[in-house]
Amino acid sequence: MAAPLIVIGSFVSPYVRKVLACLILKGIAHEVDPITPFYGNDEFERLSPLRRIPVLVDGDFHVSDSSVICAYLDEAYPGHPLYPHDPRERARARWLEEYAGSRLGDLLIWDLFYQKIVRPLVWGEPGDAERIDRALNEGIPAALDYLEAELPADGYLFGDIGAADISIASFFRNGSYAGFEVDRIRWPRTAALVERVLHHPALATLLQFEDVQRGADIKGRRQALIDAGAPLTEGSWGVREPRRGLMRL
Amino acid sequence: MAAPLIVIGSFVSPYVRKVLACLILKGIAHEVDPITPFYGNDEFERLSPLRRIPVLVDGDFHVSDSSVICAYLDEAYPGHPLYPHDPRERARARWLEEYAGSRLGDLLIWDLFYQKIVRPLVWGEPGDAERIDRALNEGIPAALDYLEAELPADGYLFGDIGAADISIASFFRNGSYAGFEVDRIRWPRTAALVERVLHHPALATLLQFEDVQRGADIKGRRQALIDAGAPLTEGSWGVREPRRGLMRL
Repeated sequence: MAAPLIVIGSFVSPYVRKVLACLILKGIAHEVDPITPFYGNDEFERLSPLRRIPVLVDGDFHVSDSSVICAYLDEAYPGHPLYPHDPRERARARWLEEYAGSRLGDLLIWDLFYQKIVRPLVWGEPGDAERIDRALNEGIPAALDYLEAELPADGYLFGDIGAADISIASFFRNGSYAGFEVDRIRWPRTAALVERVLHHPALATLLQFEDVQRGADIKGRRQALIDAGAPLTEGSWGVREPRRGLMRL
Repeated sequence: MAAPLIVIGSFVSPYVRKVLACLILKGIAHEVDPITPFYGNDEFERLSPLRRIPVLVDGDFHVSDSSVICAYLDEAYPGHPLYPHDPRERARARWLEEYAGSRLGDLLIWDLFYQKIVRPLVWGEPGDAERIDRALNEGIPAALDYLEAELPADGYLFGDIGAADISIASFFRNGSYAGFEVDRIRWPRTAALVERVLHHPALATLLQFEDVQRGADIKGRRQALIDAGAPLTEGSWGVREPRRGLMRL
């Protein structure tokens, strides 16, 4: 049997969640090295020059960036397709994945989740209240208006669930960690798609690990995740000194 | 004969240059709508929700983001391959393209070109000198150290020239517009690859249009480009009010 793939990253990162859901969808054996976000030593930086999570390690090959990883998984492994077949639909899927990683990432992660949760909890400082307000009142509603016009009334974007659906929904889970829920009256398609994706078995499996991760302190986290059945690696790239940098959550 | 593809964007944008070089490499008929960077009306925002250039219009289909566009061109059109065939090499090509668009974009465009050229010329204000210094003394040397270890001693990254080579070199052309040249003694592989790519016929063709664009004022630019033989569209999405925003150069 081939060695399992290794994903370096945290269960609460929207980018890591997306890659793990794609691995589960495709039925690819994998283990997780649950590195603490914003930590990471020189070996981590060698594997991920932009200090982003997740990193995928597949034998003697490694690569970072969640979109690059998902494209690789789809091309190197059989099973559930992550992208549609038609070139125009594939381009649209990649574009929506980029829009999610870029725009929803800025709004739901950096403007909201990072300010409301990470800065107080990880860095012991208050978040930027004005930035949070601007995201809630301007940026997020505009992004939701855009998505609402792009998303289907039911089902998924391109037939069965794929990387674009997962990518969009994954950011809203972090949004809900920061108290934000999509208004079902104002953006019914988006609210329903997010809910469908997050209740899909590939995503639901991950939710319990996220809950464990969020409920445990750094020292007890590894054991708590093992107890919950999370597929952790033996070794770890996780590290000592917190270090602000380019790392994506 | 099929209608030519349309690229909305400026000849001096590293992202537009990359897409145009890929179109030339593949021998795909195309026209350019040379929108002025940082300008763009509501119709432009409909085509490019993140207000980025380039936008590709292919009949009734359109998409933005240079990486998404290049992947689409490679999948929808025959001719010179833009990405290697092997899944691991493809992932590495995509990763290097992402590294260029993301890290070299931050350093060479936003820290250098934008501060030294765009802010004084377009916005009539001085650039951030500290930011320029930090990029020149820290960020850019670190990025060059990384690239130097990744790039080949001669030839291109994956056999013949492709999207990853073009993407990397394209940012250094904007760097040189801001007075930065790669030190051939310290980073010989990077300096040589950038030079090889920029002297490739697909890129060299574009250089003359860039020179015309840079030498003409906004009002005379269109005619000057036509006189130089640039394949411009009849219509235009170009617009009135300069507007700071998310738009990539």
